[in-house]
Amino acid sequence: MCQLLGMNCNVPTDICFSFTGFQKRGGETDVHADGWGIAFFEGRGVRLFLDPQPSAQSPIAALVRNYPIRSLNVIAHIRKATQGIVSLENTHPFQRELWGRYWVFAHNGNLPQFLPDLDGSFVPVGNTDSERIFCWLLQSLRQRYGDVPPARDALFAALHELIYPLSGMGIFNFLLSNGECLFAHCSTELSYVERRAPFNLAHLKDEDVMVDFSAVTTPNDRVAIIATQPLTDNENWISMPPGSLWLFHGGEAVSHLDTLPSPVKSLGGV
Amino acid sequence: MCQLLGMNCNVPTDICFSFTGFQKRGGETDVHADGWGIAFFEGRGVRLFLDPQPSAQSPIAALVRNYPIRSLNVIAHIRKATQGIVSLENTHPFQRELWGRYWVFAHNGNLPQFLPDLDGSFVPVGNTDSERIFCWLLQSLRQRYGDVPPARDALFAALHELIYPLSGMGIFNFLLSNGECLFAHCSTELSYVERRAPFNLAHLKDEDVMVDFSAVTTPNDRVAIIATQPLTDNENWISMPPGSLWLFHGGEAVSHLDTLPSPVKSLGGV
Repeated sequence: MCQLLGMNCNVPTDICFSFTGFQKRGGETDVHADGWGIAFFEGRGVRLFLDPQPSAQSPIAALVRNYPIRSLNVIAHIRKATQGIVSLENTHPFQRELWGRYWVFAHNGNLPQFLPDLDGSFVPVGNTDSERIFCWLLQSLRQRYGDVPPARDALFAALHELIYPLSGMGIFNFLLSNGECLFAHCSTELSYVERRAPFNLAHLKDEDVMVDFSAVTTPNDRVAIIATQPLTDNENWISMPPGSLWLFHGGEAVSHLDTLPSPVKSLGGV
Repeated sequence: MCQLLGMNCNVPTDICFSFTGFQKRGGETDVHADGWGIAFFEGRGVRLFLDPQPSAQSPIAALVRNYPIRSLNVIAHIRKATQGIVSLENTHPFQRELWGRYWVFAHNGNLPQFLPDLDGSFVPVGNTDSERIFCWLLQSLRQRYGDVPPARDALFAALHELIYPLSGMGIFNFLLSNGECLFAHCSTELSYVERRAPFNLAHLKDEDVMVDFSAVTTPNDRVAIIATQPLTDNENWISMPPGSLWLFHGGEAVSHLDTLPSPVKSLGGV
C-alpha cells in the first residue's frame, strides 16, 4: 500500500515540516520506495513534482523539503507498487484539467475489479487502477454537469453518490483537489489534524524534528493536514472512520458523509 | 517575446548543457524574467517543472541544470509576459492528455485576434492566448480523429492544415510534443542543430562552458536541439525559414512543410 499526505489551508502555507517526516517513509522509516510525487496548487496553477525514485533518496524531494512553496492545497503520495510497473507515468498524484481548473488525485489501495467504461474524454496514460478511477471520476462529473461546474457542496454530494457504490469493491483511500477545496475518502486508514490558534510545538514521529507553529503563523491561520498515519506524536490527530468522505476547505473539515453501504444495500464483499 | 528550447533524441539524453545557456537568458544575459518551465518526457510520463520566478535565480532551475534527467523529448520556455499576468497558471509549457498520451506545448508570440470556439473538452486554466491555442489544437485533433490517434505523418499533415490559416494572424513560433516526436513551427525565429557522430566540442554563447560530446555519447546517438536563437557559437545551426512546420523524430528533422500562404491565398495581414 501507499501513503497519502494532504494539506488544506485558509492562507498559503508551506508544507516543509510535514513533508520532512512523510518523505522519510519513502524507503527509510517505511517501505514505500516505488516513487513519490507532490502537487502544490498556487492560484489556479499547479506545480507537480514526480519521481519514480524513493523519496528518501530523491534530490527533487530534498528540494521540496527545503524550498518553501506556499499553497492552499497540497497532495502528496509515496508509492508501494501493487498494480502497474514502477515508472513515471504510474507515479501519483495524477493531474487533469476539467472546467478550466486543474484537478489532482492520489490513491492508496486497490480496486482491481472496477473497470468502468471510459468515453475518451479522460484516458489513463499509465496502467494503474488509480489513474483509471480518477479518469472515471472526472468523466462522470463532466457527464453530470456538462460545461457548468457545480458549487462546492453540490460537488461534494455528487462525489459521494459516485463513490458510494465502490466502497465494497476494494481499498479506496484517496485525496482529490480542484485547488479550492480538498476531498478525502477514508476506506480503511486516514487521519487528520487541524492546526489553529493557539499554536503549539509539534514533534515529528519519523525524525527528531520539532517546529513551533506559533512562531511561523498568525492567529487567524488554519491548516488541516491529512495523512494515512499521523505524522506527529504530540498533536490531536483524528482517525477518520472507514467509509467516510470528507470535505476540507479553509483549513478545516467542513463536512463528512458516510460511504459504507447500509447492511440492506451491502454488496456482499463483491 | 519569449524563448523556446526543444530537444528530440533517438536515445534518452540529458539537456543539462543546453539548459545551462538557455537558463541564463531568463533575467541575466537576456530579459525573459517572467517565469520559465521545462517538460521532460520519460516513457509515457512527463516531469513538468514550472516556476514564475526568473530562471536565472530559480532554485528549481538550478536543480534541473545539475540533475541529469534523460529524455527523448524536452520542451522548455522562458517567458517575457505579453498577454496574461505573471503567474504559475500562465507559465509555459502547458500540458494536457489526449488519446492516453500527454501533450506538451510552449509558444513564443502573440495571436490576440485568434479566438476560437472551445467546446469544453480542453479549457484554458490561465488567460494566455498560448494556452487557448493549445486547447484549440487538441480539440481540433480530437474532433478530426475521434478516439483513434492518427499515425505520425498523418498527424503532421493534420497539424499543418490546422495552423496554415493562422500564419497571417500574428507571431506563432511553437514547440509541441506527444512524447514520440516533436513538432516545431517557425513563424518568425527558430533554429536547430543536429548533433551526431563524429561528435565535437561545443561552446555555449551565454556562458563560457564547453562540452565534448564525443566523451558522453555513443556513435549511434542523434540529438536535435531547437531554440529561438542558437545556443552555441561553434556548431552548424540551421535557421528555419519563417512559415515552416517541422517534424523531429529520432533526433533528426524528418520533414517540413510550408505554412506561409501563397500570394493568391494571402490573408492580407489580417
